[in-house]
Amino acid sequence: MEFTAQAIAEFLNGEVVGDPEIKVNNVAKIEEAESGTLAFLANPKYTKYLYTTNASIVLINKDYELEQDVSATLIKVDNAYECFAKLLELAEQSKPVKQGVSSLAFIEKSAKIGDGVYIAPFVYIGENVVIEDNVSLNPHVFVDDDVTIKKHTTLNAGVKVYHECIIGENCIIHAGAVIGSDGFGFAPDENNVYRKIPQLGNVVIEDNVEVGSNTTIDRATMGSTYIRKGAKLDNLNQIGHNVQIGENTVIAAQSGVAGSTKVGKNCQFGGQSGIAPHIQIADGVKVTPQAGIPNTIKEENSIVMGTPAFNIRDFQRSFIVYKQLPDLFKRVKELENELKRLQSE
Amino acid sequence: MEFTAQAIAEFLNGEVVGDPEIKVNNVAKIEEAESGTLAFLANPKYTKYLYTTNASIVLINKDYELEQDVSATLIKVDNAYECFAKLLELAEQSKPVKQGVSSLAFIEKSAKIGDGVYIAPFVYIGENVVIEDNVSLNPHVFVDDDVTIKKHTTLNAGVKVYHECIIGENCIIHAGAVIGSDGFGFAPDENNVYRKIPQLGNVVIEDNVEVGSNTTIDRATMGSTYIRKGAKLDNLNQIGHNVQIGENTVIAAQSGVAGSTKVGKNCQFGGQSGIAPHIQIADGVKVTPQAGIPNTIKEENSIVMGTPAFNIRDFQRSFIVYKQLPDLFKRVKELENELKRLQSE
Amino acid sequence: MEFTAQAIAEFLNGEVVGDPEIKVNNVAKIEEAESGTLAFLANPKYTKYLYTTNASIVLINKDYELEQDVSATLIKVDNAYECFAKLLELAEQSKPVKQGVSSLAFIEKSAKIGDGVYIAPFVYIGENVVIEDNVSLNPHVFVDDDVTIKKHTTLNAGVKVYHECIIGENCIIHAGAVIGSDGFGFAPDENNVYRKIPQLGNVVIEDNVEVGSNTTIDRATMGSTYIRKGAKLDNLNQIGHNVQIGENTVIAAQSGVAGSTKVGKNCQFGGQSGIAPHIQIADGVKVTPQAGIPNTIKEENSIVMGTPAFNIRDFQRSFIVYKQLPDLFKRVKELENELKRLQSE
Repeated sequence: MEFTAQAIAEFLNGEVVGDPEIKVNNVAKIEEAESGTLAFLANPKYTKYLYTTNASIVLINKDYELEQDVSATLIKVDNAYECFAKLLELAEQSKPVKQGVSSLAFIEKSAKIGDGVYIAPFVYIGENVVIEDNVSLNPHVFVDDDVTIKKHTTLNAGVKVYHECIIGENCIIHAGAVIGSDGFGFAPDENNVYRKIPQLGNVVIEDNVEVGSNTTIDRATMGSTYIRKGAKLDNLNQIGHNVQIGENTVIAAQSGVAGSTKVGKNCQFGGQSGIAPHIQIADGVKVTPQAGIPNTIKEENSIVMGTPAFNIRDFQRSFIVYKQLPDLFKRVKELENELKRLQSE
Repeated sequence: MEFTAQAIAEFLNGEVVGDPEIKVNNVAKIEEAESGTLAFLANPKYTKYLYTTNASIVLINKDYELEQDVSATLIKVDNAYECFAKLLELAEQSKPVKQGVSSLAFIEKSAKIGDGVYIAPFVYIGENVVIEDNVSLNPHVFVDDDVTIKKHTTLNAGVKVYHECIIGENCIIHAGAVIGSDGFGFAPDENNVYRKIPQLGNVVIEDNVEVGSNTTIDRATMGSTYIRKGAKLDNLNQIGHNVQIGENTVIAAQSGVAGSTKVGKNCQFGGQSGIAPHIQIADGVKVTPQAGIPNTIKEENSIVMGTPAFNIRDFQRSFIVYKQLPDLFKRVKELENELKRLQSE
Repeated sequence: MEFTAQAIAEFLNGEVVGDPEIKVNNVAKIEEAESGTLAFLANPKYTKYLYTTNASIVLINKDYELEQDVSATLIKVDNAYECFAKLLELAEQSKPVKQGVSSLAFIEKSAKIGDGVYIAPFVYIGENVVIEDNVSLNPHVFVDDDVTIKKHTTLNAGVKVYHECIIGENCIIHAGAVIGSDGFGFAPDENNVYRKIPQLGNVVIEDNVEVGSNTTIDRATMGSTYIRKGAKLDNLNQIGHNVQIGENTVIAAQSGVAGSTKVGKNCQFGGQSGIAPHIQIADGVKVTPQAGIPNTIKEENSIVMGTPAFNIRDFQRSFIVYKQLPDLFKRVKELENELKRLQSE
């Protein structure tokens, strides 16, 4: 689809400076934009690109004052970043939505299928499954017996949902994610041979959750593993059995939360971070990338770093000295020598 | 299914205190149990919940003495934890087992299929594959040419087994795991362009092994990558080419063992730990979470921590000082000043 | 297939010492070879195995001088390792190549399918997809709308390629890898509820790239995430949105590169390493396993270690003192005591 500067300006309630008839069919970053695209300028660091960009249209804040001539057509708006985000969302929403149930899907007769759904070829739907309205199940999705998937949720290609799990409304689960596999529970006998502890619980994912590609979320031993509403999990995360991830908590890629740990609301975990089992993390805690949290964190909004992790300021102060350790070692040696000389005088 | 307290007590050889006709249809943790569920009390830390739990039935040790009235019906047994585990296993075993070969599966004619198997829709079975009795292959499982899968083993949804690999009896492979993909072997030429080294070996998984969701186990360059009997691998683990994982060794999630390394028996690796290539790990070694092991560990049953890892006691002693480094730095500076003053006197 | 020593010697332009008619049907490591296999000796560390190996044939360098009798038949060549690699490649190439389009695949009518392709059962191919000549798509592969896959590329079982991505020639993508899932982009509103930022870009994988099992590569927010030609990614890697991985860069398993970071050519990243978002890594940089890179690295060919990472020599010098910290602490304390004593004299 193509849009004129005029049409976009009207949609955004902005003002055209330049050619109102110029057309764009895509968006781009201002520093790498080509002709036929629309870019935006919000961050002053990128101002220099305004005068060299090949973008056909640039959104700018209306209070911005030009320092030289610009070849692109400008659309002046109240907030260029927000208007750009609005256009992105519009582009996303204008994509055609797939609907219909493929004859190449396998659906048990006892399953209940809502209206407006998309069920792709090679989808498997087990017994007593509930698929609510406008759910989208892409190719190779596996939905085992007694699972419920609520309204407007999308399972991308190859997502696997084990039996009895529940996925809320407006969720997006990315390709290859596994929801509800067995928790890692074994009891050693007297010969160190491990006996499996049956994992009889499930996983409950609440509304508005996004789960990344190839992330794994284990079912509870008993009860439920919970991903609370609005939480966002990146790719390749591991969530252990009986864990609770709080509302609007964000976990970057390749992080792990071990069994029975309870993470609060609005937390932010950096990539490759790890949280020990059976602990609590207070609301708003931030964990830096690769940090390892061995113990409960009670202080809300605290920031921790390192393995084992502690307060970020203290970590950074220790780390500065760590880099100087060879020098410190030498100085202690010199002190010892000086002192000996002094004592022998 | 529902069971009365009386029926459960008879099965466990226990004694009912309370209503023998009360019924339960599920199990729960004592602290979160609802009416209609059975819980247990073994850990004294949870004693307080005995008097407030909503569980209909609680298993307790027969030597436990009540401190006040209890609303739940009690079943007194020799060992509450073991009896509870027995009930979990009973519940697990009483689940209906799927059997039969779906007409929506693809099976090469040269494959040999045993009795009592479950082969789900969209399973792919290649040439000369051997599927022994009572094997369960869930939807979207891929079993390539010349693979053997032995008795009573379950491959969950979307498991991929590359050609020529062998999986033992009574194994459970969780969803999305990949067995037998190429090892990471490349030889740089004079222009730093990498030439692939063909990976001609296979993976051999022995009996009673469990492999977690989305875990990857690479085939050997030549010979075999071995997962010895009774080993348990959690989710998202990476096992490199030509690795050997010893009997009853347990590896927590997101850990990696690099190529050609040989891990002993009864080891325990914490989550996100990493083991270097071409080294040996002695029997019974414990590795803490996120630790990185650069060299061979010869001492059996040793425990290591840190990256690069060393003995846990030594690590902890160093770490205590690490947290005090800014203070130590200041003290050295003061010593220097003091000494100068002394010398100038 | 079986080959005689004579036939192999002719192929390699080598000289047989021993039985020219002896046959082998497999390759093996010299230290674990059985009768009927061919091994090689290149590394002097393995010389001792030459005299005890059960291999039927051993390739050796022609300048090697025997110290005692050998039971294996030898083939003397200019460079035993290179000749062995040549045989491995020959073995790999002599495997039968699957071809044809399965009637159990789903292919949209608008897709263009080249010659000599293999399209397995349960493959899904979306609208306007281009599959060039000699491409191999294994079972359960998902290729979404508007994807292009170029000549001689193999997608192993269960690979998922989201819409609009481009995969170059001669690539190998291993089982379960996900190409083009949404980048992890969310903007918090005033209530800390996250709004998804649409991810409208794609992933471009250039020629001769190998991607490991269950690795995830996110699509760009705008523009493209690039994996440049000849790059090799191991299993379970995470590549964030808008990342660029340079030519012939090699990344070991379970590593992550966060969004918008640009990695140079010929870099080598150890396993479980992590690279922060929005930074640049110069050409030829080496990152040790588990290292965490917080900032841009401008110095080409530098080697870094630790979290946060710094120059490897400096890290190692600091680490030596780290292990002695309890002793250093004691020495500082003694110095303080000595000094006090001196001052009080």
